[in-house]
Amino acid sequence: MPSNSLGDRFSITSFGESHGKCIGTIVNGCPAGLQLDEFDIQQLLELRRPGQSVLTTQRKEKDEVNILSGVYNGYTTGAPICLIIWNKDADSRSYDAIKTTPRPGHSDYPAYLKYGGFADYRGGGRFSGRLTATIVMGGAIALKILSNYLNIEVSSYIKSIGDITCNTDNLSFNDIKQKRYSNDVRCPDQDAAIKMSEAIMAARKAGDSLGGVIECKTSEIPAGLGEPIFESIESELSKGLFSIPAVKGVEFGSGFRGSNMKGSENNDIFYIEKSSGRILTHTNNAGGILGGITIGMPLSCKIAFKPAASISMTQKTIDIEKKIETDLNVKGRHDPCVVPRAPPVVDSIVGIVLLDHCLKCNLIPTVLGKTNNI
Amino acid sequence: MPSNSLGDRFSITSFGESHGKCIGTIVNGCPAGLQLDEFDIQQLLELRRPGQSVLTTQRKEKDEVNILSGVYNGYTTGAPICLIIWNKDADSRSYDAIKTTPRPGHSDYPAYLKYGGFADYRGGGRFSGRLTATIVMGGAIALKILSNYLNIEVSSYIKSIGDITCNTDNLSFNDIKQKRYSNDVRCPDQDAAIKMSEAIMAARKAGDSLGGVIECKTSEIPAGLGEPIFESIESELSKGLFSIPAVKGVEFGSGFRGSNMKGSENNDIFYIEKSSGRILTHTNNAGGILGGITIGMPLSCKIAFKPAASISMTQKTIDIEKKIETDLNVKGRHDPCVVPRAPPVVDSIVGIVLLDHCLKCNLIPTVLGKTNNI
Amino acid sequence: MPSNSLGDRFSITSFGESHGKCIGTIVNGCPAGLQLDEFDIQQLLELRRPGQSVLTTQRKEKDEVNILSGVYNGYTTGAPICLIIWNKDADSRSYDAIKTTPRPGHSDYPAYLKYGGFADYRGGGRFSGRLTATIVMGGAIALKILSNYLNIEVSSYIKSIGDITCNTDNLSFNDIKQKRYSNDVRCPDQDAAIKMSEAIMAARKAGDSLGGVIECKTSEIPAGLGEPIFESIESELSKGLFSIPAVKGVEFGSGFRGSNMKGSENNDIFYIEKSSGRILTHTNNAGGILGGITIGMPLSCKIAFKPAASISMTQKTIDIEKKIETDLNVKGRHDPCVVPRAPPVVDSIVGIVLLDHCLKCNLIPTVLGKTNNI
Amino acid sequence: MPSNSLGDRFSITSFGESHGKCIGTIVNGCPAGLQLDEFDIQQLLELRRPGQSVLTTQRKEKDEVNILSGVYNGYTTGAPICLIIWNKDADSRSYDAIKTTPRPGHSDYPAYLKYGGFADYRGGGRFSGRLTATIVMGGAIALKILSNYLNIEVSSYIKSIGDITCNTDNLSFNDIKQKRYSNDVRCPDQDAAIKMSEAIMAARKAGDSLGGVIECKTSEIPAGLGEPIFESIESELSKGLFSIPAVKGVEFGSGFRGSNMKGSENNDIFYIEKSSGRILTHTNNAGGILGGITIGMPLSCKIAFKPAASISMTQKTIDIEKKIETDLNVKGRHDPCVVPRAPPVVDSIVGIVLLDHCLKCNLIPTVLGKTNNI
Repeated sequence: MPSNSLGDRFSITSFGESHGKCIGTIVNGCPAGLQLDEFDIQQLLELRRPGQSVLTTQRKEKDEVNILSGVYNGYTTGAPICLIIWNKDADSRSYDAIKTTPRPGHSDYPAYLKYGGFADYRGGGRFSGRLTATIVMGGAIALKILSNYLNIEVSSYIKSIGDITCNTDNLSFNDIKQKRYSNDVRCPDQDAAIKMSEAIMAARKAGDSLGGVIECKTSEIPAGLGEPIFESIESELSKGLFSIPAVKGVEFGSGFRGSNMKGSENNDIFYIEKSSGRILTHTNNAGGILGGITIGMPLSCKIAFKPAASISMTQKTIDIEKKIETDLNVKGRHDPCVVPRAPPVVDSIVGIVLLDHCLKCNLIPTVLGKTNNI
Repeated sequence: MPSNSLGDRFSITSFGESHGKCIGTIVNGCPAGLQLDEFDIQQLLELRRPGQSVLTTQRKEKDEVNILSGVYNGYTTGAPICLIIWNKDADSRSYDAIKTTPRPGHSDYPAYLKYGGFADYRGGGRFSGRLTATIVMGGAIALKILSNYLNIEVSSYIKSIGDITCNTDNLSFNDIKQKRYSNDVRCPDQDAAIKMSEAIMAARKAGDSLGGVIECKTSEIPAGLGEPIFESIESELSKGLFSIPAVKGVEFGSGFRGSNMKGSENNDIFYIEKSSGRILTHTNNAGGILGGITIGMPLSCKIAFKPAASISMTQKTIDIEKKIETDLNVKGRHDPCVVPRAPPVVDSIVGIVLLDHCLKCNLIPTVLGKTNNI
Repeated sequence: MPSNSLGDRFSITSFGESHGKCIGTIVNGCPAGLQLDEFDIQQLLELRRPGQSVLTTQRKEKDEVNILSGVYNGYTTGAPICLIIWNKDADSRSYDAIKTTPRPGHSDYPAYLKYGGFADYRGGGRFSGRLTATIVMGGAIALKILSNYLNIEVSSYIKSIGDITCNTDNLSFNDIKQKRYSNDVRCPDQDAAIKMSEAIMAARKAGDSLGGVIECKTSEIPAGLGEPIFESIESELSKGLFSIPAVKGVEFGSGFRGSNMKGSENNDIFYIEKSSGRILTHTNNAGGILGGITIGMPLSCKIAFKPAASISMTQKTIDIEKKIETDLNVKGRHDPCVVPRAPPVVDSIVGIVLLDHCLKCNLIPTVLGKTNNI
Repeated sequence: MPSNSLGDRFSITSFGESHGKCIGTIVNGCPAGLQLDEFDIQQLLELRRPGQSVLTTQRKEKDEVNILSGVYNGYTTGAPICLIIWNKDADSRSYDAIKTTPRPGHSDYPAYLKYGGFADYRGGGRFSGRLTATIVMGGAIALKILSNYLNIEVSSYIKSIGDITCNTDNLSFNDIKQKRYSNDVRCPDQDAAIKMSEAIMAARKAGDSLGGVIECKTSEIPAGLGEPIFESIESELSKGLFSIPAVKGVEFGSGFRGSNMKGSENNDIFYIEKSSGRILTHTNNAGGILGGITIGMPLSCKIAFKPAASISMTQKTIDIEKKIETDLNVKGRHDPCVVPRAPPVVDSIVGIVLLDHCLKCNLIPTVLGKTNNI
């Protein structure tokens, strides 16, 4: 199976490098008949794009998506959709320094070894966080289909930055969805957002960086998604989520905290909702997933991001060629905290995996709508 | 691609049900020329088998492995290896009660929906923890190859049960490896093991259950394993690990804790080991993985297990057919804590994924050795 | 992806060796709710089984199928179905001779090289025609679903043996389907069948062997199956058909003959069937496939089988170890012509591929029927 | 697994439409360190390009390849290689006529049904023979690696056009390789080439079209390529070859003719080559493949192309929307015979499949060479 790909019935194949000519993605398995233009995708890209606030890198990537195939007369045709962003603002000069002196916390060192020195190291090359835009391009299509045809909404937000935690106790799913983009941190709790923002600014000033946690919640999703054992929804989602650079932890529902609960506390008790007759659970410690299969409750998971590896402080490293230890000063324009730019990426991964499994469960027709263009 | 499968170059395909005729696995891609008999596999199965201590279920599953194909004259032939365990001690009577009254925390409910009432519900059927034995059968082969041909050792142990945590500060990898099976809890810290044991006994007495965390460490592994983005080692390992029932969280290196560290703290600094000239890092917050690729350091990850869903307390649930709420008393012989039985399962997943990637990187020959049998 | 597998949504994974303990197959992706017992599968196996007529090998393989998993209370559960045949009549003594003196036309030589001498050579091991029974086991399930839920029938028959050709000019699809098993040759033209039978007997007497051509026809199948380019129905079918040992050619519709026709002759002209309003074509030179996609017409393809490689004449060969040329006398009980045993294998391959694509096109529900067993 | 893809370790994913913005391919799994520029690919594209002789369509597609990713400083980096050709000479006006009146022999009808009328029908859209250029782009890379690192050469040529057959009895592999491109028909037998050329011209004049047969031969290839049963080299090659539009038959070695031979005639007898001590066969009726595995002899297969479906004669067809029968006059600039343009496509498919299996057999290093660019 081709590498650089995620998904089966609906899949994306990512290509391109941070400072190469372009980055792009091929979307395979998108049903015919979806109304689609660049704007559908651009909207989600804008939310990931850098250079928008003082909290993120000052690089100005315009990140303008081009649909090169798979769409005709405004509708998807069933053919693979090629989406591309031409790289424009790449400044590769500062990367000469890291040719043979790998940056701590970055992929420079294993990439050098794996590809025998042939990897494109400029801007992190293939390993750059910039490549998450290729995920977002495919995710935007998945999320549109889920929303339009199955009323499934996905909404990630910043749960914590460093030691500052967002309080969402009194917020509904819709509250979170609406408020999360009301500030540059992407946190629906405005008080926490201000503190997070200050912490990020302080880290930048100190030449240091911060990490954080994103929580992803969905509206209620169909029961029965996922396959037992190796294609559980948790397996599929974690596979996708760990493909985001900087992600070092994923948990569903009560997760690590749940490992310290008793069975009688952690088990979610089923009940019948009076008004609708639907079977639901009072709590959602399972994060909407039992035995790897969705149960009809909202999905809920948390994703841990390490602090950005690029910091402007002087760091020790080694010179691979000269076999000596040396000092490294990383130049370039970097994010002191990448987490605020990641909610669209998390939403995209979740959207792609959910759509893939909805297709496997025949929940989406093979042709999405009739049109007059024939 | 066939579902119920894990791995690409080296893969396992799991089959069977908890109370059906058998459980089994097909191993595809095992190189020819590996000396292999049932004992190689039985050893690891024994460490997962129930009925061995007061801490686990009193079911007596003998779990005797049979090699049905792929081995001739004591060596693997390169053909698929079919491994099977005949089910013997299944007592399915107690499961009539759960036909239509799904147990909280179990897969009964989504399985009922997904398969339209046709799923084999006895003992949890396809979703039973018993199926992890099919993973261990394949894992035993992978771990043998890694150990014999690449000196890679994998060693999981219980890091915590409930709120009791194991202290491994002064233990080397080899210490952990040797001491972990010295008690029924599978914890190398004997003091903690006693407390964990008491906590599990107390939970059993209370008709309740406990969860815990397993830490998996490896010896140093080759650099360069994993593919960028969607087939990162973290993606592949987490996909496998989340296929273990009860796993609800996975983190690598500093993981969730690392999300609250600064970049300057979390970055692992490279240095050159004087004696060997090798490039290593002082700390291992990355868990041996940067950019999804191994760096030559030991792998390290933590896996959160929820408390066992089967508890003997009375619980509320619903009757799917009658559409009413009802009480449920789960009978049967269950583990008050499944975590002590899980290290061989975790080792197996890690072994399968690592071997798969070692094969992709040409680190294992296509034929393992010459023999005299021709 | 696991090797030894065919299919995606519906797949089989074959295992076992000709003279090992068993041969078997894992069926993945069979929808839940199909009524299934051993007899459903045994019927088709009987048509492939040797020892039934003077035309085929006199080995008496009973070939009794056992369902080991995936079926509960008489219905498929949605879990993987393990099907197994225990080997009984294996006489491996005669194979000592071929350990290092590969039989011409057989896989002995490349198997020896590929697996470094570790392959199980007895009876051809993994490469034996006997392994086609593992295909038939999975095919029987696919063909039952196609027939019961989509009215798709698949019917292969012997088109030629050596230079004797079957005449089906005046036979409808149903005629062929009914008459093909009325003789041991599996040829619906009785006159030709007698001549073919005589030719096979003569070849046996001469210590030689014959090949032939099978034609596979289906009833009308749904339009739209197949994916452009690499997953065309022709690509998928040929991939499966060439996995049958002895197959050396596959053609669809007018095939090789069509390459010598003019476009104006070979193009099938569309028309509207008066009685039904359906769009059909007058001729079917396309074999029911245009652009790799089915058009709603019957499928039609021809498969060339080479003469059986096992002949009792003395043949020259080499000794791999001694590096000398030598004479070889193959003992054992062999088919002078394997083609009469192959129609169930061809039907199975076609059934598996068609069902796989019907599932991809949402033409089969994910659960096949409701039952009272809950 | 993503559709529109061929190959596993080395794979191509095709995208684009005949009259869309571009056509392209993503090459996954190309080892790092291969010297590669556009010219390497352009050379092979030129041999497929139309508008070069009176025998082919008069469309002037410049077919200029652009490398968009995966190459840095003149060497492959190990990252996916995106190759694109911008469409320029598309004249879509003439296709309005076929919106709802499908051309006989073309994919218009099944494409309309499969994609609910949303398919891009211009120039055949996704089903156009133009898409074979996406195969050639990936094939050029595979063929370069095979040639440079394993001395494997692949050489397809026109075996017959209509009823005119090429005589290669006295031509060595190198003769064929050198002479095949010495005329516009791509036939190493100059006498036959002239007759073929005349036949094609006559067909064009008559508003009709011709088909033909391509034979593909290789130099000696390594033994042991291919996996038993479903991933036999014959399975993998045929899957790829049937993805070429117009291909309706594939045979290996003696193929259909062999089905009319006796075992004693068809079996290839092994011998030991005196000069080298190598094991070879006197004849090559197996086409270099036994049991689906290569034996070290040259590969040999034949591919049947139907006559081009596009003819300028008036043909009957139906109007899908109006449900009536109607006359059709296909305009546009078409090939009276596509076969002379197909050898590079066949070579590409064979190259991709062989390289994929050479990688699986560890015959190619994961990094191809050291360079000075670091």
